[in-house]
Amino acid sequence: MKKLRYGVIGTGGIGGFYGGMLAHSGQEVHFLFHSDYDFVRENGLRVDTIMGDFILKDIHAYQRTQDMPVCDVVLVGLKTTSNDLLKTLLPPLIGPQTTVVLIQNGLGIEEKLAADFPDISIAGGLGFICSSKIGPGHIVHAEHARITLGSYQGDNQKVLLQVCADFEAARVPSEYSDNLLTSRWKKLVWNVPYNGLTVVMNALTSDLMADPSMHRLCRDLMLEIIGAAKANGIIISSKFAQVMLDYTLDMKPYAPSMRLDFDFKRPMEIDAIYSAPLAAAEKVGFDMPKVRMLEQQLRFIQGMYL
Amino acid sequence: MKKLRYGVIGTGGIGGFYGGMLAHSGQEVHFLFHSDYDFVRENGLRVDTIMGDFILKDIHAYQRTQDMPVCDVVLVGLKTTSNDLLKTLLPPLIGPQTTVVLIQNGLGIEEKLAADFPDISIAGGLGFICSSKIGPGHIVHAEHARITLGSYQGDNQKVLLQVCADFEAARVPSEYSDNLLTSRWKKLVWNVPYNGLTVVMNALTSDLMADPSMHRLCRDLMLEIIGAAKANGIIISSKFAQVMLDYTLDMKPYAPSMRLDFDFKRPMEIDAIYSAPLAAAEKVGFDMPKVRMLEQQLRFIQGMYL
Repeated sequence: MKKLRYGVIGTGGIGGFYGGMLAHSGQEVHFLFHSDYDFVRENGLRVDTIMGDFILKDIHAYQRTQDMPVCDVVLVGLKTTSNDLLKTLLPPLIGPQTTVVLIQNGLGIEEKLAADFPDISIAGGLGFICSSKIGPGHIVHAEHARITLGSYQGDNQKVLLQVCADFEAARVPSEYSDNLLTSRWKKLVWNVPYNGLTVVMNALTSDLMADPSMHRLCRDLMLEIIGAAKANGIIISSKFAQVMLDYTLDMKPYAPSMRLDFDFKRPMEIDAIYSAPLAAAEKVGFDMPKVRMLEQQLRFIQGMYL
Repeated sequence: MKKLRYGVIGTGGIGGFYGGMLAHSGQEVHFLFHSDYDFVRENGLRVDTIMGDFILKDIHAYQRTQDMPVCDVVLVGLKTTSNDLLKTLLPPLIGPQTTVVLIQNGLGIEEKLAADFPDISIAGGLGFICSSKIGPGHIVHAEHARITLGSYQGDNQKVLLQVCADFEAARVPSEYSDNLLTSRWKKLVWNVPYNGLTVVMNALTSDLMADPSMHRLCRDLMLEIIGAAKANGIIISSKFAQVMLDYTLDMKPYAPSMRLDFDFKRPMEIDAIYSAPLAAAEKVGFDMPKVRMLEQQLRFIQGMYL
C-alpha cells in the first residue's frame, strides 16, 4: 500500500502531537506554522510526551499553505473558532484523493466545511488526550492519546483505516468509528461539563471532581447531553456518564482546552461545544437547562474578558 | 399609643440602617455591636444615606444582650448564617410582649426560630434596599429603602402596623404584608439570580444586565422561582420577573449582600436563599435546574474560597 502524505494545519497541542507522532514514526508530514515558524525552522518541533520526548529537527515546516504539496490526508488541529480560515488555507493541499480530517471538538463543523467544499472527502477526528502547546514549537503531552476517526462525506473509509494503522504504528491508539456523529456526541459528554466548568469555576478537573456539588453537576450536564443525543436518535448508555466521571477522577489535574483558551485570552469554542448541541436538542424539542446556563455563563465571560 | 422600645441584633447594612433611621427619628433603639462596639462608643454610628447623612452620637450601644433591656420589637439584621446565635442572644431581650422581626432573606428562617422559641411572637421583614456596612460603625445606604413586614407566629399584626408607622415617620417606606410567605418568595425572585450570579460571574448587577446571556439567565432563574412558588400554592405573576428585571436595570451598579460576603470571605447565605427554596420545590415535585446549578456552583465556591 502506498504511503500517505500528511499535512497538518494548526500545529498546536493536537496537530503538533498527532502530526509529530506520525512524523517521528517515519511518515511524511508537512506542517503549517503561524507565529512559531521561525522558531521551528531554527529549533525544530519539540514534543514532550509520556511516550518518550523527541524533537523533530528535519521537519517539513511552512508558513503558507501555498508552499505546501497536495496531501493525501490533511489533519486539521485548529480551534473551531478559526475554521473560517480553512476556506483560504485548504485549497493548495487538496487534490482529487485528499481527505480532510477535522480533529476538533463539538458538533456541526464538518457541515460547515462541506458547505464550502461540497466535493471533497471529509472526515472527523476526536482526540482523547491531554496535550497542549506551552511555548513556541513546544508541545507537552501529559496523558492519554487515543484518537477516533470517522467519515463524514466521500468514500474515505479505506484511507481512514490506513490512517488508523499509521497511528498505531506510531504508538498512538486509534480506532475507526462507523458513526462519526455518535462519536462526536460521546465526546461532548466529557467536553460539555469539563471545558465550561473549569472556566466558569476557575478550577481544574481535579478540583471539580473533589467537590460533591461539582461532581453532581458534571453528572447532570452529562445526562442532559446523553438525553439530547437520544432525542436526536443517537443512543449513548446513561452508564457512559459514570465511565466519564471515573475516567476524569483518575486523570491528573487538568486544564482542558477551553480553560487554556480563557487563560491565554483566546476565543472559546462556545459555538461548537455548546450552541450547536443546544440547537440540535432544541430542534427536536429537548431541553438542556444546565447546558444552556453554562453556555450563557461562557458567553458572558467571553464578552467580559476575551 | 405607647411608644415601642426597639432592639437591634446585627448592626450591619440592614440593622444599622433600619435601626439607625428609627433612632434618628426619635425612637428608642438599643443596638448590639460585636467587633465595632469600642469604635461606636467613641465615634457613634455613622449612616451615610441618600436621605441625608447622620451620625448617632448618643446611641444605646451594647456588647452583650445580657446588658440590654427587654424590648417590644427586636429587629434581627444578622446574616442567616449566624442565626444559630439567636438561641443565646435573644432571651435577655424577650418579655411577654416582645415581637422578634427577622429582616433577612430566604426561606425557612422563622420556622427555625420558632423551633427554639415556640411561644414568642415572630415576624419576618424584607428589606428592598442597597445598603452595606463599609467600615466599623459606618453604614452606607445607596438606593431604595422599602421594608415589608409580615407575621409568622403570634398575634402581632397590631405591633407590626405600629412598626410600619414608625418607619414611615422615619421616612422609610414600609408596608405590612398579610402573607409573609408570599413576600419571601417574591423577594427570592430578585435574590436568587443576583446574589448568586454576582458571585459566580464575579460581576455587579449592572454587568449582568448589560449582557444579553445574563439578562436571559436572570429571567430564567426568576421564572423557575415563580414556578416553584406556584407549585407551593403561592401565586406570583410571571410579569413580576419583568418588573424585577426593569427594577435592576434602573439600579446603580450594585454588589448584593452575597457578593460582599464573598469579597470579605464571610459564609454565604446559600441555605436560606437557595437550598431552602430548592427543598420546598422538590417536596412538591417541581424542578428548578438552573437554580440547582447556581446552588451547586456557590457550594463549590464556598468550599474552595471561604
